[in-house]
Amino acid sequence: MSAPAVPQRTRAAVLHGAHDLRVEETTVDVPASGEVLVSVEAVGVCGSDVHYFTEGRNGRNVLRGPMVLGHEAAGVVAAVGEGVTGVAVGERVAVEPAVGCGGCTTCRSGAYHLCPAGTCLGSPPTHGAMTGFRAVPVRAVHPLPDGLGTELAALVEPLAVAVHAVRRAGVATGHRVLVTGAGPIGVLVAQVARAAGAEQVVVTDVHDARLERAAALGATACVNTARDELPAAAFDRLLECSAVPAALWQGMHALGPAGRATVVGQASPSVDGLPLALMQRWEIDLNASFRSVHAFGPAIGLAASGRVDLAGVLTGRFALDDAPAALSAPGSDPRHLKVVVRPGD
Amino acid sequence: MSAPAVPQRTRAAVLHGAHDLRVEETTVDVPASGEVLVSVEAVGVCGSDVHYFTEGRNGRNVLRGPMVLGHEAAGVVAAVGEGVTGVAVGERVAVEPAVGCGGCTTCRSGAYHLCPAGTCLGSPPTHGAMTGFRAVPVRAVHPLPDGLGTELAALVEPLAVAVHAVRRAGVATGHRVLVTGAGPIGVLVAQVARAAGAEQVVVTDVHDARLERAAALGATACVNTARDELPAAAFDRLLECSAVPAALWQGMHALGPAGRATVVGQASPSVDGLPLALMQRWEIDLNASFRSVHAFGPAIGLAASGRVDLAGVLTGRFALDDAPAALSAPGSDPRHLKVVVRPGD
Amino acid sequence: MSAPAVPQRTRAAVLHGAHDLRVEETTVDVPASGEVLVSVEAVGVCGSDVHYFTEGRNGRNVLRGPMVLGHEAAGVVAAVGEGVTGVAVGERVAVEPAVGCGGCTTCRSGAYHLCPAGTCLGSPPTHGAMTGFRAVPVRAVHPLPDGLGTELAALVEPLAVAVHAVRRAGVATGHRVLVTGAGPIGVLVAQVARAAGAEQVVVTDVHDARLERAAALGATACVNTARDELPAAAFDRLLECSAVPAALWQGMHALGPAGRATVVGQASPSVDGLPLALMQRWEIDLNASFRSVHAFGPAIGLAASGRVDLAGVLTGRFALDDAPAALSAPGSDPRHLKVVVRPGD
Amino acid sequence: MSAPAVPQRTRAAVLHGAHDLRVEETTVDVPASGEVLVSVEAVGVCGSDVHYFTEGRNGRNVLRGPMVLGHEAAGVVAAVGEGVTGVAVGERVAVEPAVGCGGCTTCRSGAYHLCPAGTCLGSPPTHGAMTGFRAVPVRAVHPLPDGLGTELAALVEPLAVAVHAVRRAGVATGHRVLVTGAGPIGVLVAQVARAAGAEQVVVTDVHDARLERAAALGATACVNTARDELPAAAFDRLLECSAVPAALWQGMHALGPAGRATVVGQASPSVDGLPLALMQRWEIDLNASFRSVHAFGPAIGLAASGRVDLAGVLTGRFALDDAPAALSAPGSDPRHLKVVVRPGD
Repeated sequence: MSAPAVPQRTRAAVLHGAHDLRVEETTVDVPASGEVLVSVEAVGVCGSDVHYFTEGRNGRNVLRGPMVLGHEAAGVVAAVGEGVTGVAVGERVAVEPAVGCGGCTTCRSGAYHLCPAGTCLGSPPTHGAMTGFRAVPVRAVHPLPDGLGTELAALVEPLAVAVHAVRRAGVATGHRVLVTGAGPIGVLVAQVARAAGAEQVVVTDVHDARLERAAALGATACVNTARDELPAAAFDRLLECSAVPAALWQGMHALGPAGRATVVGQASPSVDGLPLALMQRWEIDLNASFRSVHAFGPAIGLAASGRVDLAGVLTGRFALDDAPAALSAPGSDPRHLKVVVRPGD
Repeated sequence: MSAPAVPQRTRAAVLHGAHDLRVEETTVDVPASGEVLVSVEAVGVCGSDVHYFTEGRNGRNVLRGPMVLGHEAAGVVAAVGEGVTGVAVGERVAVEPAVGCGGCTTCRSGAYHLCPAGTCLGSPPTHGAMTGFRAVPVRAVHPLPDGLGTELAALVEPLAVAVHAVRRAGVATGHRVLVTGAGPIGVLVAQVARAAGAEQVVVTDVHDARLERAAALGATACVNTARDELPAAAFDRLLECSAVPAALWQGMHALGPAGRATVVGQASPSVDGLPLALMQRWEIDLNASFRSVHAFGPAIGLAASGRVDLAGVLTGRFALDDAPAALSAPGSDPRHLKVVVRPGD
Repeated sequence: MSAPAVPQRTRAAVLHGAHDLRVEETTVDVPASGEVLVSVEAVGVCGSDVHYFTEGRNGRNVLRGPMVLGHEAAGVVAAVGEGVTGVAVGERVAVEPAVGCGGCTTCRSGAYHLCPAGTCLGSPPTHGAMTGFRAVPVRAVHPLPDGLGTELAALVEPLAVAVHAVRRAGVATGHRVLVTGAGPIGVLVAQVARAAGAEQVVVTDVHDARLERAAALGATACVNTARDELPAAAFDRLLECSAVPAALWQGMHALGPAGRATVVGQASPSVDGLPLALMQRWEIDLNASFRSVHAFGPAIGLAASGRVDLAGVLTGRFALDDAPAALSAPGSDPRHLKVVVRPGD
Repeated sequence: MSAPAVPQRTRAAVLHGAHDLRVEETTVDVPASGEVLVSVEAVGVCGSDVHYFTEGRNGRNVLRGPMVLGHEAAGVVAAVGEGVTGVAVGERVAVEPAVGCGGCTTCRSGAYHLCPAGTCLGSPPTHGAMTGFRAVPVRAVHPLPDGLGTELAALVEPLAVAVHAVRRAGVATGHRVLVTGAGPIGVLVAQVARAAGAEQVVVTDVHDARLERAAALGATACVNTARDELPAAAFDRLLECSAVPAALWQGMHALGPAGRATVVGQASPSVDGLPLALMQRWEIDLNASFRSVHAFGPAIGLAASGRVDLAGVLTGRFALDDAPAALSAPGSDPRHLKVVVRPGD
């Protein structure tokens, strides 16, 4: 393992406001006690990043000042702070962006992703990882096995989101699973559901091109809901990954007795038309998953063993200087599923 | 145990349409193979009965022809059909109104209350128990211990609903539980939640008189939500027993991280304003409970041991001839919580 | 679908005592109401059959009179009794051998495999399926999809045992799983654990040939415990499939905090040397799985999709006349893993 | 709240070897960053303390040098270290004796009681609380509500053990629960099981006097197993609190299908005669509980509300100078159930 040299200055993609993303020079973090400095090699672009870029906000999280974007990061450990053990300079790692305080009741119960005092890279006011170097707590870095490079490892974060979502859905061996939305999260959720034992994984979308890619990546069947209807009472689990309220409504009507709907895509503050009597008559549960918890390890295992195909999900790579283009790519070019920015290039 | 004499004719409260409940003479059932004939001593009046009585329907269940009302029944075994074992003529029993087919995947999984082919006493087109005698499958009768009379045992059915709801809510030792609605189900749910280990059981309503009764029956605190606000993030579990959509909305906002909201009161077909982003941010789950399953045994145990006070919930008794008055009582007189009709008197 | 002709007489492999298995002519069952007559095409030989054959007993189940052997069966529906719906003459099916009474508390809770009054094909005094035709309750037959023939489908029963065992073990995405014993159940358990999301599936045995086959069928690593030691605190789950008490002991010592050991192989009546202090210090749970429940559907799905390789497990086929040889094969020839008898040939 | 004055010197009950407990002068701890200094008002004597006192060891934990005894403590906050929030000087608290490192996978999963690097007051080499003052991490102190004094609050630790054990047993509404052993833990477990919804709580012991006390404290029935046999298949859950292997064996035979046995009393390193075939035939699970986790809050709630009677469990109090007598009391005088030492007196 060779240690990256640590300069004093680096560059970062800083969001100053809607559509105002600038690549600027910044100071390199000095890792505090218990922190690790990561030389960032790749950062994935997430739908939430696109929201910040296009609207200056993501739901209730509002940009209040210039902020480095990016929370899907992988790289190499460049330095470690005082008291850090278990990770060595030169080690390749994926970075878990959200950390809890570690001391509150919620953290101590194991649900550190729900910590009321938690922070997340690239979520205001915490700077993100679309930069050459970023210091993070040691518990946020997850070593990568041979055979999983840092470029694909930038996708470990959304894969961990999928692992957590599939757990929240309680997918079990033999389940018939419906995944609504064939974007990057939907495609990863479909793969994880299959790897968790699902017998059928039906993916829906309104674009055939996206469905074709989902089929190539492991969906057992695909339905274009702009054209075709879903059968009633046909599924055990729904994972809603489209962030379209109508997809949730339709998907819930496709669940059988004791089914469960899990919202993975970004949820609307207020949803109308919830079929509550249906939920009661058939005891169909509704929950949602938030980021991920305890999921980086399993995600790395799924990717490294090839049971989840990350290479098929990655459709583009951009230099740091082209970060604005990377942020625009998923919206402007339907061939893109997931793109990464490579700060080191 | 003395066996009730079985006549050939009896009388029943037959609903012919909205507000048209007639006490008529009918033929006594002959128990088929595997059935038990129950001499009905008391039948509770449920909110769903009131819906049938006042509207001719209960949600999606519509009265299509004359039907005997009533599904909260207790009485004495008067005769048994061929092949019946384990229950004797003369034995006092509570009657579980909903039975599944026993053979489908749902029944075999243990969720017989969700059987697509199931029936329920007093739910169209199945005649109910507000009559002198009713034959039911042997698995529907639950023997009563000494000290639990048939009049109070008519309340075992709503108590079983409460037991099932508290299970669906996953109430555990130490939980802070919010119960919205101080009607009969709310009051029973509050008692069961406390008996299941809840540390706090806060009951809400908009009528002080109802809240005073809830306080006397085991709520650890009461809040009149017409006057006072609920604290945010204060509860682990919500059991919504008011059937008022605003109560669900307010209650969900009072849940903390990893909370759960369980809808017990009759659910609206379509609910607007679901706070889905809140559900996602804090991973608050939403489910609903339908009738009950495997809950009559525990309900009888709670009632017989005195841990749930049924006598405090029963506020009126009516002769069969006064069935129309019984159906009107809960709506017209706020002092009433739960009333029973006694077909044998 | 062509219906097999139903003769009045057929032949069966009847066990009269230890080592006394005779192929005899018998009367064909007439399906009673609710029953299905299956023309048996293949019957797997299980370790318990070998126990009956060599000892006249299997644990506490003792042969009291002549009994047809065999409980791992698949075939074609030849006739249906009164009231049977949902399955047609000519349909290919796997047969679930154990059925519960359907009416007791245990059955109604969903655990029909634990029914105190349940019966199982080929378990005294119930005749088994190593015969041309056998009538079973309709709920015992599970239709086969295209692409899963009846010969391999005889292995659906042990695969269902593996599915149930993996559920009892609570294997989840990312788990490191240890499977002790590379016999037919061990190899199937390893495949199912992998299909349920396990990250590592390490199989142990004391024969290299068996371990090589396990490696070819999906184990991620193999350990010959006659030669090598297991690492301590290395696994999340243990599935003990060897029926060797020392393997359970060693396996439990290889579990980490909050681990779980599940005994799948036939359990000894009394086991010495249980490391109870270890179980307490690290809260390691011990359970066991009995036959299977609700597992035929998922098992058929895993086999039909190819995620579990049954063909690699099937090592021999015998005509009915050679049933004694089939019963001796697994013990006498280490190249055998699982063999079937084909009554129709 | 009045703050206790903090001296520089205090006294402590120091164990130098088996039967060599000396009350000595020691230095008062200075609370480090994140720590709280507790003025100890009462310390309960646990069976494990008696083991250290009489044998110089407790299972695998061996006394290597002089150590202050005691891990069941309550008192008043006398000072706080740097960065401590949420607890004030003068506040009355119960002290959770076992803390995890907070950073390992086990701690982060929520199971801090299983932390491989964890420490516990009064467990070698960590000094205990049988002294005037002791500094502990802030997460180890749990504020007491009005109405729960520090003397009884010394029993919150064993009550938390009981809460955790009842959770590990999965006691639910309607369960028939068997508790073997009517010592302090058995009596607390019985009360918690009842408060968690158990319908029957049957306590066994071989001393009538202990059973009489258990009956007075909430057991629904008692059985002297020196005289009477337990009925077979009669219970849903067993909580083994006697540390007698025969009680575990007998108790497991009294469980019905899908039952669970939880070992709460100190487990033997090696147990013979485990009825593994019985566990398999009826899918009876065996687990054990270690100390407690996330249980102090619920325990304080149960005690403060009176649902668990701690006063009835406390049978003696001793001054610090009489600590040797306190350690001998439970063994020498059968009237004693639980005694406390009061360092401040």
